[in-house]
Amino acid sequence: MLRYPRSVVCVLAAVCASTPAAAQQTPDSLVVRYREAATRIIQTALADSSAHARLGRLVDTFGPRFSGSTNLEQAIDWMLAEMRTDGLGNVHTEPVKVPHWIRGEESAQLVSPRRANLPMLGLGGSVGTPKKGITAELLVVSSFDELTAKEAEARGKIVLFDAPFTDYGHTVLYRRNGAVAAARAGAVAALIRTVAPYSIRSPHTGSTQYDDSTARIPIAALTLEDAMMLHRMQDRGDRVVLTLRMEAQTLPDADSRNIIAELIGSEYPDQVIVMGGHIDSWDVGQGAMDDGGGIVAAWEAVHLLKRLGFTPRRTIRVVGWTNEENGLRGGRAYRDAQSAGELSKTVMAFESDNGPFRPRGVGFTGSDAARAILQRVVPLLAPLAADTVFPQGGEADIGPLIEQGVPGMSLLTVGDRYFWYHHSQGDTLDKVDPAELARCVAVMAIMAYVVADLPEPLPR
Amino acid sequence: MLRYPRSVVCVLAAVCASTPAAAQQTPDSLVVRYREAATRIIQTALADSSAHARLGRLVDTFGPRFSGSTNLEQAIDWMLAEMRTDGLGNVHTEPVKVPHWIRGEESAQLVSPRRANLPMLGLGGSVGTPKKGITAELLVVSSFDELTAKEAEARGKIVLFDAPFTDYGHTVLYRRNGAVAAARAGAVAALIRTVAPYSIRSPHTGSTQYDDSTARIPIAALTLEDAMMLHRMQDRGDRVVLTLRMEAQTLPDADSRNIIAELIGSEYPDQVIVMGGHIDSWDVGQGAMDDGGGIVAAWEAVHLLKRLGFTPRRTIRVVGWTNEENGLRGGRAYRDAQSAGELSKTVMAFESDNGPFRPRGVGFTGSDAARAILQRVVPLLAPLAADTVFPQGGEADIGPLIEQGVPGMSLLTVGDRYFWYHHSQGDTLDKVDPAELARCVAVMAIMAYVVADLPEPLPR
Repeated sequence: MLRYPRSVVCVLAAVCASTPAAAQQTPDSLVVRYREAATRIIQTALADSSAHARLGRLVDTFGPRFSGSTNLEQAIDWMLAEMRTDGLGNVHTEPVKVPHWIRGEESAQLVSPRRANLPMLGLGGSVGTPKKGITAELLVVSSFDELTAKEAEARGKIVLFDAPFTDYGHTVLYRRNGAVAAARAGAVAALIRTVAPYSIRSPHTGSTQYDDSTARIPIAALTLEDAMMLHRMQDRGDRVVLTLRMEAQTLPDADSRNIIAELIGSEYPDQVIVMGGHIDSWDVGQGAMDDGGGIVAAWEAVHLLKRLGFTPRRTIRVVGWTNEENGLRGGRAYRDAQSAGELSKTVMAFESDNGPFRPRGVGFTGSDAARAILQRVVPLLAPLAADTVFPQGGEADIGPLIEQGVPGMSLLTVGDRYFWYHHSQGDTLDKVDPAELARCVAVMAIMAYVVADLPEPLPR
Repeated sequence: MLRYPRSVVCVLAAVCASTPAAAQQTPDSLVVRYREAATRIIQTALADSSAHARLGRLVDTFGPRFSGSTNLEQAIDWMLAEMRTDGLGNVHTEPVKVPHWIRGEESAQLVSPRRANLPMLGLGGSVGTPKKGITAELLVVSSFDELTAKEAEARGKIVLFDAPFTDYGHTVLYRRNGAVAAARAGAVAALIRTVAPYSIRSPHTGSTQYDDSTARIPIAALTLEDAMMLHRMQDRGDRVVLTLRMEAQTLPDADSRNIIAELIGSEYPDQVIVMGGHIDSWDVGQGAMDDGGGIVAAWEAVHLLKRLGFTPRRTIRVVGWTNEENGLRGGRAYRDAQSAGELSKTVMAFESDNGPFRPRGVGFTGSDAARAILQRVVPLLAPLAADTVFPQGGEADIGPLIEQGVPGMSLLTVGDRYFWYHHSQGDTLDKVDPAELARCVAVMAIMAYVVADLPEPLPR
C-alpha cells in the first residue's frame, strides 16, 4: 500500500481554502449539500493505492483479456467473487456471444533488398495467409489517395499504408479500411504503419473491417520504424519483397459475460446510474490502461461509497462490459437486455475508457437542463482540478444507451502517451500511476453519488 | 534531400552577429584565422541532409552490423567503395579478429502463476541453455546486496535483478556482472531488468561477463514492464516459474576490419588526427544511433573538408573501428598497429559515440596546455551552441590511444532518449534527426580541421 499523506493534505487544504470564497458567492445548494461527502470521498480515495493494487491483481493474474479467451472468463469469475466480498449487491453476469478471433503464429519477413524479421501485429479480424505465407513485392503509399493514383501498380502486391499519425480518428481509418482499399486495387495483402504517434519498434493491433464486395486479404501493422524504412527503400528504387505469414482465423462466436454489481438505492432502487468500463482487452500487453484501469476505477468508486456508508437515493450499477475491443457486443447486449421501462429509468451512463490518468473533467451528452445541473455539481471536483463539463460524453460501451436517449458521461483524463501504449505490448500496469488512478476513483464516486442522490432524476 | 534554409540563415546570422562583439574584445588570433573556414563548414554542413541520407543507405541496406556477421563485412566493403568515390586518400582496411557470438532462437516463457511469452534479449557473450531450456523458480532481487542477503534462497533458481535505472554506469553492472553473481549464489540462470530508463516492452542487449571461478550460466534481459510484474508476483507470494531457452553460442573468432581513409596533410602528412566512430553495432535494430551516426558524422566531416578544398597541414584520418560493442578489438588493434613513432605523431584522437544528436560541445582528455588551445578554438562552435570543452574526452575505441598518451576528444550531444534506444530494436534511422546530424558533422569538421592545421601540434 502506498500512502499519499502530502497529496491528501494538499487536496484537503484546497477544499477548505475554497470554502470562504465560495461562501462569499453564496455557494450553490448542491455544493453545500455534497461538499462533506465529496471531501470524504477524495480523502479516502487518495489515502491509499487500493485501486492500483486491485488493478495489479487483475492484470498480472489474468494478463490480456481478449474476447473468446480463458483469461477473460477467469478474470470475470475473479471479479464476481471480489465484488461479492466487497459486499456489493446483485452481483451477477449477463451472457454475451462474442467474436472469437485468434492470432496464432505470425511474422513479417523482409526478403529483399535484405533479409530481416520485422516486428508486427496482425489486425483483429484479419484473415490468415496460406501456411507458406504470402510473398510479394511491396507498394508503399502514404494515403488512400496515393493508392488511388497508383492503383495500376498495386495488383498482386502487398500494399503498405505508411500514413503518419495525425489524430486517432483520422489515422485509424487505415487500420479499419486498409484491407478493403488494398483488395479493391488488386493487392494480395495489406500492411499499415502502426496507429501511434511514437514507437520503440512497437506495433499496435486493433480491429479491421472487410466488406462483402471485395476479397478478404490479410492485414497487419508494422512499426513506425519499419514502415518508414520500407518507404525509404522504395524511394531509393529498391525492389522491396516481403513474406507475410499469419495463422489468424475467426472461430465460431464464444460465450462471454457482462459483469453487473450494484450499490442499491435507498429510495428509488429501480432508477439506475450505470457506471463502468470494459473488462476485455486486446490479446497483447495487459490491458491495464485500456481498460483495466477504467473498470477498476468504476468498481472501486462504488466500493468506496459502500465502505463510507454512502447510500444514494438511486442505484449505482457497476457494469464491466465484455468485447468492447472487437465487437462491442457487451455494450449492445446490455442495452438489449433492458426493457423500455428500464431504459427510461436509466438516469445516466458513465464510462471510463480514456486511460486512467489524471482526470481533467467529465464529458457529457444530454439535455441542456441536465448539463446545467452537472455544472452545479462539478465544483465539488475543484480540489482535483477536474471541475469542467466538456461537450461530449460518449464512449463505446455506453453508445448504445446514449442512442436510446440515456444521458452519457465520460471520464476525461490527461493521457499524453495514451496512444504510445494503446493496443500494444506496452499497455501494462506500470503505465498507470497509483495516485492518478485514485483521482479517477474519486471523480467517478463523486459524480455517480451526487447524480444518484439528487432529489429529481437528471432530466432527459 | 532536405533543405534547411531557415536554420542556415539563423546560424549564419549568429556568426555575423558575433563578429562585432568579438571585435570589441580583440578576437583570439585562432578565431580570426579560422572563422571564415568555420562559417563555410557550418553553412555547407547545414545546407543539406547528405549525412543523413548516407546514414540511411548504410543502416537500411545492411541493417545491424554485429561482429562476425556478413552484414558488417558488406557494410565495410560498401564504405570503402564510397570513400574512394569521395576521393579520400589511402582508403584501406586493417585486419581484426573479433569475437563471434550468435544469438540463435531465444525465448522466456512465464509458466506460473500464468503462461505468457515475455519479450527478451539474451546478453552478448551469454552461454545458451540446454535445448529444452531451463525451467526453474524465480528469485527476484533489487540489487546485488539483496541477493547476498537472500543467497540461501537462490540455489537452483533463476535470479532476476530488478534493479531500477539510476545511471548507465551503475545500472550496467547488473548486465556485466549479473551472471557471475547469480552463479556464485547457486542460480541456474540469470535475468536482468533491461538497462534503460524507459521502455515500451522493449528489451536491450549488451555485453555480459563471466569469470573462471564460477559456472557460466545463461543471462538475458527482460523488459522493465515484465521485471516489475514478476517482482509484484513474488511480493504477492506467487510462486513464479519461468522457462528460459537460448541457443546462444560463441563461435571461433571471425575476421573483421577497421576502415581507414585520409585527408592527407599538406605539410606534416605523418602527423595525424584520428577521427571516427565504430562501424559495428549490436545484432538488433539498425545501429543508427550507436554508432552509425558517429562514424558517418566523422566520415562526412572529412568528406566536407575535401569538398570545400580545405587541406590542413596535418592528416585527418577517419577510422571506422570494428567490434566496439562486444570486444573492443578494433580499438586495440588500431593502437597495436601503430609503431611508437606513429603513436607519438598521433596528435589527437576524436570519437563520436554518444549518439548523433544536437552537439553541446566536446570532451577532452589531455594536457592543460592542449586544453588551453582548444578553449581558444571552440568559440568557432558558438553558432552551433557547442562552444564548450568538457573535462573528459574518453570514448571506448580511442581509449587504448589515450592510454598511450594521445590527447582524446569526444563529441558530446544532447541525447535525452539515448538509453531508450541503446542496444535495442528501437535504434533505427528515424531516431536521428537530419539537422542534428548535420551539426555533428560541422563540429567534427571544424575541430579536426583546426587542430590539424595549427602551426604547432597540440601539446601532450
